[in-house]
Order: sequence, then structure tokens, then C-alpha cells
Amino acid sequence: MARPFNFSAGPAVLPEPVLARAAAEMLDWHGSGMSVMEMSHRGREFGEIFAHAHDSFRRLMGVPANYKVLFMQGGGIGENAIVPLNLIGRTGKADFVVTGSWSAKSAKEASRYGNVQLVAPQAVDRPGQPRYVGIPDPATWNVRPDAAYLHLCGNETIDGVEFFDWPQPAALGAPDVPLVVDVSSHILSRPLSFEGVGLMFGGAQKNIGPAGLTIVVVREDLLGHALPVCPSAFDYATVAANGSMYNTPPTYAIYIAGLVFDWIDAQGGVQALAERNAAKAALLYACLDASGFYRNAVAPACRSRMNVPFFLADERLNDAFLTGAKEAGLLQLKGHKSVGGMRASLYNAMPLDGVHALVSYLQDFERRHA
Amino acid sequence: MARPFNFSAGPAVLPEPVLARAAAEMLDWHGSGMSVMEMSHRGREFGEIFAHAHDSFRRLMGVPANYKVLFMQGGGIGENAIVPLNLIGRTGKADFVVTGSWSAKSAKEASRYGNVQLVAPQAVDRPGQPRYVGIPDPATWNVRPDAAYLHLCGNETIDGVEFFDWPQPAALGAPDVPLVVDVSSHILSRPLSFEGVGLMFGGAQKNIGPAGLTIVVVREDLLGHALPVCPSAFDYATVAANGSMYNTPPTYAIYIAGLVFDWIDAQGGVQALAERNAAKAALLYACLDASGFYRNAVAPACRSRMNVPFFLADERLNDAFLTGAKEAGLLQLKGHKSVGGMRASLYNAMPLDGVHALVSYLQDFERRHA
Repeated sequence: MARPFNFSAGPAVLPEPVLARAAAEMLDWHGSGMSVMEMSHRGREFGEIFAHAHDSFRRLMGVPANYKVLFMQGGGIGENAIVPLNLIGRTGKADFVVTGSWSAKSAKEASRYGNVQLVAPQAVDRPGQPRYVGIPDPATWNVRPDAAYLHLCGNETIDGVEFFDWPQPAALGAPDVPLVVDVSSHILSRPLSFEGVGLMFGGAQKNIGPAGLTIVVVREDLLGHALPVCPSAFDYATVAANGSMYNTPPTYAIYIAGLVFDWIDAQGGVQALAERNAAKAALLYACLDASGFYRNAVAPACRSRMNVPFFLADERLNDAFLTGAKEAGLLQLKGHKSVGGMRASLYNAMPLDGVHALVSYLQDFERRHA
Repeated sequence: MARPFNFSAGPAVLPEPVLARAAAEMLDWHGSGMSVMEMSHRGREFGEIFAHAHDSFRRLMGVPANYKVLFMQGGGIGENAIVPLNLIGRTGKADFVVTGSWSAKSAKEASRYGNVQLVAPQAVDRPGQPRYVGIPDPATWNVRPDAAYLHLCGNETIDGVEFFDWPQPAALGAPDVPLVVDVSSHILSRPLSFEGVGLMFGGAQKNIGPAGLTIVVVREDLLGHALPVCPSAFDYATVAANGSMYNTPPTYAIYIAGLVFDWIDAQGGVQALAERNAAKAALLYACLDASGFYRNAVAPACRSRMNVPFFLADERLNDAFLTGAKEAGLLQLKGHKSVGGMRASLYNAMPLDGVHALVSYLQDFERRHA
């Protein structure tokens, strides 16, 4: 049976070969007589699984040698507190650029732990329009040279706004300020640069695997500045010193991540996925732009290749659209509750055929209801 | 092929029918066309899975109506900080009884957030003896009547010391002090009383499911006192108000937990497991006590039914013991690195046959090496 196409924003579609292999190995991993779920995290077998996932991730991401890769818990929302708990203490200040719901949430949470400033004016609500539709011009950002870091969200999962290059601290007049980038929803979708970056973090439940695993990549010189109230389990220096095993890591999620990394290799690596992702996104945006029936309001230069929010001109048709989509084998297209409308997430595991099927449905639905 | 018997302290053995069902449903849960890992946590399908796990847990545990059940991340070590971040603010003080490595670790972590006191003198190291071998007489405990809570570890996973009844705050001269009980390694192994209890917490990776899920049961009147530095994702009031979906929960682990709860029902419920667990532990302790070759040093009245640490009189035989055990299909018997020796964990999913097999091996190994 062909599986339907699942456009969920996360937890999200996983490659079918990964799921098939996980099912086949569920009761007995590689002749060990154990499920991966049943292994001590300190045993030889899980040690192999962990090392494979960790080493594959470093290689696929091109993580430079002076960064640690940490496998943690708590998700992106957890990191909204854990990042400042670890980093803001260096100077007591952190700057944020807000380009959507996630960066706004990150800034709010960080303000518990120090002095937080937005580097550009906040977007304001306009009646009938999505709030976040672009990136304020970096030339206008007011970054404090003594900020402990500058936070940005690489890809706004809800609003569909993506950075394709990180503005560089030196060019922003703040050469000593490391970037902190929330890459949750576009990690491994294309090569991501570490230039100027002090820390990247991402929840796994989009391009990597099951919810409950968070990956943090942190430059070594930023370790060791945690606030005294930072819980030990979330102190990057402690986690790094213990190889991500200070507390029991989410072992099964790490195993699935390792299988996904194998699948990425089998696809030709991150660059090959990047090309496929660009083609998928181009196909969908072209369809939306060619129609007066659908609308995506994000500025073309920063339209996300991973999450495409769109609206029907006549929102009374929303329910009919979703019902018909499900019947056509196109799942989880409903937009985030905070913005409404629709959203198609085109993560790595979404094949080009899925986008073709979506485009056909969009055109067919328009023909029937326009 | 018969699976070997897995005595890991956690992550630990799971019931084979649970693993078989998870494998069978991996690519398509109940005709949804999705793996559970691929479902939006806010969708109808995962909503059903969540409600089933949550409601089953409440019923199996007999959770009173005035307690919330929260599904969180971070494990027991995370909770060592999260509990005081949420509860210590009421009075600024918390008391701890230390009966092993875990309660000692909990007390140390809590001291970051307020005034922490041990209610009884610390156990001291004695040459050649395990440090923790019993529970100090509650009549001697010095509990402060204005402590925000009194913490105890219901079952010390490393040291094998278990409380079979909670000392009651009124009897301790502190009637207003709620108990906080770390039940990570004996949750659902037998009925646990909520009398006097303000909060119970446990990592899932012993009796419930995969690592990465933490369950917290908290009395409603204790919500809403979090310190300002408590991360939103770990603020019990926020988590409760959002039905454990303030951030993306560890969805697949919650699904497996629900399958384990079904299995517990199929075994006859918690009381039936309690009887089986008592029989399993009695069998193993009788074997150890009958021998001068093996030794468990814990006072008989508080010997854990879940985790049985033991030592060979001649520790030079440790490697031979472990190698032979593995050949006999008895896995993960090595003791925790901090105490050495051996440890057999007898969680719910360990069948009586596994303990019989272990006892046979113990007797055989002794015959061959005594």
C-alpha cells in the first residue's frame, strides 16, 4: 500500500526505509537480543549506536573541530531558557532579531535571565495580513557590541520566513558577538554555515527524528559560563564533559536519528537534499503565485523552503479543502492555530512526488471552487 | 528464538508483546497512514494516544482527583532541579532524607535553589562495605515544620534500598510538609500510596518505557509557586495548563508507555505485578543469603524488590561471572560504576523464569568457582 503524503510541521514525516528498518530491528538489534529501547545507555551496544549518530551528524553538518555536539532533552522551547541560562551570564545582555513566532517566543523567555533587546522594531499586526512576512534589513539592526550573543531563528516554522545566509557579526558592528541560531526546522535541509556562529540548536522532530531529542552545537569557548541557577542536566559544560550522558539520553530517538543520517547519506548527502528541497519549494510557490485563489504573503527572498504557509482567498472553504486533501492522501495541511490558514511542510523526507500531488490537488480544488 | 533475560537497571527490559505491537504498527498506526513518530502532537490521532496513556496511568496508579499528571522531559536528574524550581519557593527551605546515591544527588542539586537540610546524619564510608544499606529510623528525623517539602527516594536504583511505606509528615512532627517521592525505579511495581504525598516523579526508562519521558504527579495546591528563573517548559503550572503540550512532548515514548499500560492490565493490574515482583525478589535474595559466595548488604526490611546489588566474595571473579552470564543469556548484570559488583534489576517486564535462570546460574557459578 502506498503511504499518504504527510505535510505535518512536526513531528513530521520520516523516510519509509528508516521506519522499516526500525520495525525490523525492534525486538533484536544486530543480534544483541535486545531492543534499542532496552539497552543501558552505558553499555557497549548503545555506545556504538550513539557514536554512529554523533559522528554521522558531525560529518553531515560539517561541524568544525572547536564545537561540541550535545544530545539533550527539552526541545526548542526548553532551549529558549537553556541557551540564556548557559550563555547570557558572560555579559548579562542578549540581542534578538524577531522574524516570526519562534524568535519572539525565544526573546520573551530569555528576558527572565538578563537584559534582552530586540535589534529591529517589532512587526505589527495589520488587519487580514500575516504578522511576519520578512526579515528587517540587517543594515538597520542595532546590535550591542557587548551582547553575550545575537539570537535569530534560521527558519520560522509557523510563519515560513527563512534566513538563507546568517548576517555576520562583524558587518553588524558587533564583531565579538556570536550568533545563536535556532535551526530546528531547517537543520540538514541544506548546508548551514558556522561562520560567526557560537551555537546552533534544534529539536529533532522535523528533519532528524522523533520528538524528545534536541541537538545543540556549541563553540567550546562559550562553555563554562552557566548561571548558578542552571540545572545540571542542562548545563552545556556538564553535558559536554559527560559525552551527553550526564543523565540518561533519549536513547531510542538517538537511534532513529542515526538511521535518518544513514538515509541522508544514501540520498547523496545534504547538498543533494538541498537541491531537491529547492525544487520542491519552487514548485509549490510557483503554483501559489500563479493563482489568485491561494496566497503566500512572505517576501520572496526569505520564503522558507521547509514550511509554506498559505491562505485560501475564501477562508469559508478551509474545511472543504482539508477534507478533500485527506481524501486525496494529503495529510496534516492545517495551519498553526496562531495564524490559521494552511501550511505545507516540505522536510527532507517529503518526496518531490508529494509536492506534485499537492500541486495537482491545489489546482483541482481551485477549478472546482473558484 | 527465545530472547535472553535483560537485567539492565535502565533503560531496561520491556514486555515482548509491547515491542511486537510497536514493530507491527511502525509504518501505519491504526490505518492512519502514519507512524506514531510522524504525527503532529496536536492532531486527532496523537490526541487519542495521549489520552489513552494518560487515563491508563491515572487508573493504574490510583491517582486522586486533586493531582495533575504531567508528561515531561529531562529524566530524574532534570527533576532534581525542576522540583525545587517549582516547589521550594513556598518557604525557601527543603528537607531531604538520604538513603542512597540518588537522594544524595537530589539534595545537592536542590541546594542551588534554597536552603537544604538533611534530616538524618549522612551514611559514612566503611572500608569494603557499600555506603548505603538502610533507612535511618524516621523517629530520629529532624524535619523542619516550615520546609516546602520533604524529599525521599522511594527506591534507590544503585544501592538497592526501598521504602515500603512513606513515613507520614504528621508522625514526623511536620504535618504541613508534603512528601516529594522519586519513584523512578519502582513506579507501577506495586500500589504506591498518595497519603502525605505532594509530588511523585519518575523517569520512564525502568517500568514504563523508553528513556526521554518523565512522569510527574503533583497535587494541585502546589502549582503556581515556581521561582522566576524556572524555564517555562519546566513550570508545572504551565505544563498542566497546556495538558503537557506546552512544548512538543516525547510522543513516541508516550505511545510506548500506553502500550506498557495495556500490558499491565493484561497481567492483572498493579496488584498482580506486586505479588509477582515480591516472589521474584524473594527467590533471588534467598539464593544470595544461602551462599557465602555472594553478598547483599542491605537491611532485610528495606531491600529493594526492583534492584538487587550483590558482590562476589572474590571480586577477581567478576569478569568471569559476567562473561559466563552473557553466555547463559543473562544480560547487563554489571553493577553501577560508583559501587561496583553486580546488580540484577527485576522490573515488571522481567519474568519469574528470568530470576529462576539467574538463580541457577548463580548456584552453578558458585559450584564451579567456590
